[in-house]
Amino acid sequence: MSERVRGPVRVALLGYGTVGTEVARLLEEHATDFAARVGTSIELTGIAVRRPDRHPDVPAELLTADAASLVNDDVDVVVELIGGIEPARTLLLDALRAGKSVVTANKALLAEHGAELFAAADSSGADLYFEASVAGAIPLLRPLRESLAGDRITRVMGIVNGTTNFILSAMDSSGAGYSETLEEAARLGYAEADPTADVDGFDAASKAAILASLAFHTRVSAADVYREGIAEVTASDIAAAKTLDRTVKLLAICERVSDTENGESVAVRVHPVMLPRKHPLSSVDGAFNAVYVEADAAGELMFYGQGAGGSPTASAVLGDLIAVARNRVQGSRGSRESAYAALPVRPFAQTTTRYHISLDVADRAGVLAQVAAVFAAHEVSIAVVRQRGRAQDASLVVVTHSASDAALRATVDDVAKLDAVHQVVSVMRVEGGEP
Amino acid sequence: MSERVRGPVRVALLGYGTVGTEVARLLEEHATDFAARVGTSIELTGIAVRRPDRHPDVPAELLTADAASLVNDDVDVVVELIGGIEPARTLLLDALRAGKSVVTANKALLAEHGAELFAAADSSGADLYFEASVAGAIPLLRPLRESLAGDRITRVMGIVNGTTNFILSAMDSSGAGYSETLEEAARLGYAEADPTADVDGFDAASKAAILASLAFHTRVSAADVYREGIAEVTASDIAAAKTLDRTVKLLAICERVSDTENGESVAVRVHPVMLPRKHPLSSVDGAFNAVYVEADAAGELMFYGQGAGGSPTASAVLGDLIAVARNRVQGSRGSRESAYAALPVRPFAQTTTRYHISLDVADRAGVLAQVAAVFAAHEVSIAVVRQRGRAQDASLVVVTHSASDAALRATVDDVAKLDAVHQVVSVMRVEGGEP
Repeated sequence: MSERVRGPVRVALLGYGTVGTEVARLLEEHATDFAARVGTSIELTGIAVRRPDRHPDVPAELLTADAASLVNDDVDVVVELIGGIEPARTLLLDALRAGKSVVTANKALLAEHGAELFAAADSSGADLYFEASVAGAIPLLRPLRESLAGDRITRVMGIVNGTTNFILSAMDSSGAGYSETLEEAARLGYAEADPTADVDGFDAASKAAILASLAFHTRVSAADVYREGIAEVTASDIAAAKTLDRTVKLLAICERVSDTENGESVAVRVHPVMLPRKHPLSSVDGAFNAVYVEADAAGELMFYGQGAGGSPTASAVLGDLIAVARNRVQGSRGSRESAYAALPVRPFAQTTTRYHISLDVADRAGVLAQVAAVFAAHEVSIAVVRQRGRAQDASLVVVTHSASDAALRATVDDVAKLDAVHQVVSVMRVEGGEP
Repeated sequence: MSERVRGPVRVALLGYGTVGTEVARLLEEHATDFAARVGTSIELTGIAVRRPDRHPDVPAELLTADAASLVNDDVDVVVELIGGIEPARTLLLDALRAGKSVVTANKALLAEHGAELFAAADSSGADLYFEASVAGAIPLLRPLRESLAGDRITRVMGIVNGTTNFILSAMDSSGAGYSETLEEAARLGYAEADPTADVDGFDAASKAAILASLAFHTRVSAADVYREGIAEVTASDIAAAKTLDRTVKLLAICERVSDTENGESVAVRVHPVMLPRKHPLSSVDGAFNAVYVEADAAGELMFYGQGAGGSPTASAVLGDLIAVARNRVQGSRGSRESAYAALPVRPFAQTTTRYHISLDVADRAGVLAQVAAVFAAHEVSIAVVRQRGRAQDASLVVVTHSASDAALRATVDDVAKLDAVHQVVSVMRVEGGEP
């Protein structure tokens, strides 16, 4: 149990960027409402920033460059919005061990050091809330942790990174290539100066780890997540998807899988996939996020909303802040880590997915037979083949049944060596609906 | 604070229909998981049914026809799935006053007697949870109560009744009329023998009251909700919608409205509307539910899933049961009623909406001028007019700017009296997007 607060709930804010500014602004704007909702007022006691002199709009007495002192001060809740691993990790461990509640949007920290943070929270009975770490404003973690606590979740699949979704949406509309679209995204403010965390899938992988941990009551860290970014997605891939009435999305996919040999385990991966255009996730464009959840009793659920940005993220942070503040007023505590199931994480090499392969081939009889023989030799089963002649070239599109990555790669390597195959245009995983 | 439970959490189940059966089955199937999630086992101590002899599959010692005794027995949580006002109301008031936590799916009871139930819960510090009362499996109430507690919700708009959505979807696909589609829905099990609660909008109105209460921190009861069902929706309405690339849906709409004269108030209504076919709620077909939420900081959010049925509703009931059981193990308490804002409910007569009016008119010059003059006389402003000639008749479609119901009705009455107007084909409210 957290210590019961009788006066105002005292809050330290670490970080004053886009989200932090909005949090501080809304705390002031809605002070009366928030006090009524919590049962006491929320008092912002300090804001830790790197350069206090750069914020002339903030009362000087609130600002400090010394985050550690602010955390160790007389505060009840620490709101962490600085991101990255250090010093955030040390600051939050100190806060939690001292019994201070923590609200954070730091997906990377949770995905890498979640176990340590939860242990620190448990040692003192403090709350650790992190709704803003995944899918911005979309209420997603609380539904997984609480609303679906009486169900058995089997799959969580979603678009959880706005930058990559913006780039893929733009490539789909314009037909342009990856590099020029990334440049445009940066120019429009949808991609960071260093876009690595987004475009290489690190951000989505952290979020996938958090989602899988909650959905499957199992500790999943970023290192457990198979990860491919979008840098290899070509205009040809997008064009190939279009001819099949599909679209390319970067998805985070968390699955409960079971087989007779190993029993139940979880598989967590982030990579581009082709989705049927009529799939609800296909129409999620630009910087929006959407997450599908499948559970035994609930069936299919979808959550949709803004996944990033100052105001949407601040909404999630403040929802958590109100919750932990209420808990302190009541002397109670919210949901803690639930990792009892401790399911093994299945290595990606054992995960099978369906693939789409698009080939430019010679337009002559017998090509399909040759290609099919290569697939058969690697025991990759073909679900659908479409051939189309065009002048001297013909295109051949194959969608496979579930196959392992290794088998598929070996197949594609051998297919590429066939004389009749001029070019491997696109190889991509497929999700959703029938082949 | 609820009394702290040390042994198993003892649960009484009231009602053993489609949902109750699933709740009991899943409690048994997932007993080990649920115990790990709660921290102690959940024990089903009794099931109250009208006719115990009708349930040979249930151990006889669990069954009783005496719900009152079961509630007054040594139980920690009462799960109410009998529906209707009495005896549910008396049973739950007794349980809450005695400090027993309550989980209920009873939207009618909450929408009519919510204040009394919350007061009883507060008198003893017991939990009153009711996620299953609105939109079945979709986590919606917890997000409104908790995730968005740090935001300012301005609008909640959704499809919350599966029966009427099934009927309207079927009318849209088949072009058939209301009565024959209702008969088909009954035959397929999508409509009850007495469909009044669904088709006349009572069910949706109860849900709208619950949603508005949570969204606006204000007590809203079923009597505060303006309500029109779908019985008046004709094949002509659906056809008129189609020609405008729209579809007809029964929506529950909860709005925060403000004007300089009266300040802030809430408006809550349930009625059929024409929605643009590209609006996300338009593609919600059959028995599915979906709810849009708009909040100042979060922006637009959407929640989608199965709104009814044994398993989906059981998922929501069990999520609540796990939550209240956890609270009892911790000796803590979940969110209580938040009605501090106590905003006035705006009478429907003061609410303005946009309307679509479709007329069959004589195909001659000057008709539009006559019709427009009638609209002008009633100060109903026209946003769009479309005229189409066909043989001797012509059709005239008018979409208005926001107008009051009274002004619109007077306008339509006078328009119908014009010689040049052969028939008023359809009059319906419009939501979403531009006219």
